[in-house]
Amino acid sequence: MKYAKRMEKVKASAIRSSQKKIAAKVANGGSVISFAAGLPDPNLYPMEELKDATMKVFEKNGKEAVAYGLSKGDNRLLKLLAKRMQEKENMDVDAENLLVVTGSQQGIAFSAMIFLDKDDIVIAENPSYLGAINAFRPYEPQFLGVDTDEDGIVVEHLDKILSENPNVKMIYVIPSFQNPSGKTWTTERRKAFMEVVNKYDDIVVIEDNPYGEIRFKGEPTPTLKSLDTKGNVVYLGSMSKVLTPGLRVAWVVADKEVVDKMELIKEGADLQCNQFAQNQVAEYLENYDLDAHIEEIRAAYKNRCELMMKTIKEYFPEGVKYTDPDGGMFIWVELPEGIDANEMLDDAIEAGVAYVSGEFFYANEGKKNTIRLNYTTMSEEQIVEGIKILAKVIENKMK
Amino acid sequence: MKYAKRMEKVKASAIRSSQKKIAAKVANGGSVISFAAGLPDPNLYPMEELKDATMKVFEKNGKEAVAYGLSKGDNRLLKLLAKRMQEKENMDVDAENLLVVTGSQQGIAFSAMIFLDKDDIVIAENPSYLGAINAFRPYEPQFLGVDTDEDGIVVEHLDKILSENPNVKMIYVIPSFQNPSGKTWTTERRKAFMEVVNKYDDIVVIEDNPYGEIRFKGEPTPTLKSLDTKGNVVYLGSMSKVLTPGLRVAWVVADKEVVDKMELIKEGADLQCNQFAQNQVAEYLENYDLDAHIEEIRAAYKNRCELMMKTIKEYFPEGVKYTDPDGGMFIWVELPEGIDANEMLDDAIEAGVAYVSGEFFYANEGKKNTIRLNYTTMSEEQIVEGIKILAKVIENKMK
Repeated sequence: MKYAKRMEKVKASAIRSSQKKIAAKVANGGSVISFAAGLPDPNLYPMEELKDATMKVFEKNGKEAVAYGLSKGDNRLLKLLAKRMQEKENMDVDAENLLVVTGSQQGIAFSAMIFLDKDDIVIAENPSYLGAINAFRPYEPQFLGVDTDEDGIVVEHLDKILSENPNVKMIYVIPSFQNPSGKTWTTERRKAFMEVVNKYDDIVVIEDNPYGEIRFKGEPTPTLKSLDTKGNVVYLGSMSKVLTPGLRVAWVVADKEVVDKMELIKEGADLQCNQFAQNQVAEYLENYDLDAHIEEIRAAYKNRCELMMKTIKEYFPEGVKYTDPDGGMFIWVELPEGIDANEMLDDAIEAGVAYVSGEFFYANEGKKNTIRLNYTTMSEEQIVEGIKILAKVIENKMK
Repeated sequence: MKYAKRMEKVKASAIRSSQKKIAAKVANGGSVISFAAGLPDPNLYPMEELKDATMKVFEKNGKEAVAYGLSKGDNRLLKLLAKRMQEKENMDVDAENLLVVTGSQQGIAFSAMIFLDKDDIVIAENPSYLGAINAFRPYEPQFLGVDTDEDGIVVEHLDKILSENPNVKMIYVIPSFQNPSGKTWTTERRKAFMEVVNKYDDIVVIEDNPYGEIRFKGEPTPTLKSLDTKGNVVYLGSMSKVLTPGLRVAWVVADKEVVDKMELIKEGADLQCNQFAQNQVAEYLENYDLDAHIEEIRAAYKNRCELMMKTIKEYFPEGVKYTDPDGGMFIWVELPEGIDANEMLDDAIEAGVAYVSGEFFYANEGKKNTIRLNYTTMSEEQIVEGIKILAKVIENKMK
């Protein structure tokens, strides 16, 4: 078979290949403490409430909930989400500015589809979410990375890149509790970013915000969309990290014109999202307190994050650097130069602990001495035990 | 905002614009008998069984059913569907040959994405499913139409096109109860088609088969996939017309290599399908008799189709031609030359009846004097009443 040229650019996700290595070890009777996931803890899903909401869908909406609906999304859900965006994120938007998508992932893919021509430049933070980079690849853009520091994206670096590259079309960012670094931009940095972006014409900002509500330390920061005066920001929200990922309910917030284009693309791409899941989420939002549920998640992740940080500080050898997140799901580790974390992964899995190698989170050449650690899915005992094992693996590699 | 060049090719669905015209009339207090839909009858959904299956999902799979799963699809569902394809469609396939997608629509879009380069030629029947044509457009292929007769696609015409156009990459067909024509290819025609296709290298056949099981007259015909000896056929199956469309559960059957490529694309496009809906369908398939349910659908649609045919024969003016389907959901009408069915639609809606204009079902220039009628969603009274009204509208136009 002869495939389209774009397929040469498409790569498998390194996260899923880590998972395969782990699965192979487990299949052979081994056990692995995995910090490789990017998953919420299933034990925190509000199963009773979801079940109850599901029953209500059958009682109240019945056939309509399993029939065809609108490509743009279920009206009731769109209104509920618009209200949430107004109240929680201070956005001046209405249901007409929203579109329901299958995970933020589909919002990223649709953004690529409607905006990117071959060889347009996409800017991403260094490092960035590899799933986004993979979603862009079939549209054959070029990538440029922008530096980040403790306060977020380095706007001077961004400004330099923009002034030197008239072909930049899109900037993809995760300003809050970034995947994979765990970093969060300060409010000042967000404002400065929007100022720089607004200097240029026709640059689209994709603000991917799946973790924004999972803040367990520090002061809230505004979304870029709430600071957007020119309609350049396409915001991606999701239920995956705050409610449950398997229902795949996420949404795009953007200018009506952009939403209309995405609706057209949605018709061709899969006609519409699952109608039943949209009803389940709408029913849940109407009958239960999502914010109270998020409080539970925050408390649980805060504990695990603090425990992981404490154990890292105690056991990791000197010369290893790491971030200290205020929320979200990830810690980013930089090993001493010269250590190849992907090579080390085999030793780690052999010793009983797993992570995702950081180099795959770069659009171009990646730093081989980096690691992404997740702290949301393992128990407290596993976190302590896993970090101790990992510390030894690193120590051995540093010898 | 500056959009990607491909967006110039993307068009709104004419079906959805008919629906908007109808909605406007209804909003003004009017009533419309609509033959414009392509929907199964919601009154035939097995709601009690679906509810029961859903409860079982909560009891048996709980958290797992709302967590992340595999991009390829839920293992249990893949196995159940593979078994169904073996038993019902005589395909020599296994779970590794299947991928779960969000409606056949996503299977069409993925096929376009992995196979089509700009200006590759896609062949479709004349007329064909406009949703497929729209799904292809963002990949900027050229389209060529092939003639069809009472027995299906005209293979001599196809052979001529293939021999004259080395750039043909893909042939998109709906061999059973086609949308919009209602036509079904004979077994001989299917064999002849595969023989012609097999003469050429690297041509992909997309066999879209959402209606195949809804046969209420005549002899069963083999799927192209079951006749495929070279692995050229990508088959699309769906629960939308036989169970319920809102769960968006459909599947691709293809060579493992093609499925693997699609899995990669799926990761970038939306990571995976709704996990809960896959569990609902798997649970339904394990506990209930889908075939018995399909028998009910067949019986109901047979009645409605026969009633619509009878009424058409009695009331439509001479000079109007129409197909007489053995299954599926549609009748295709050809008005006398010179009548513009899309212009006539406003008169029809004003008079209280709606359809989809046939010209939009052609990839290139369409026949303006054609109409697609659906008989699955209106009651018997509405079918008789609506056809009588439409007959008058046509008569007036012919004057």
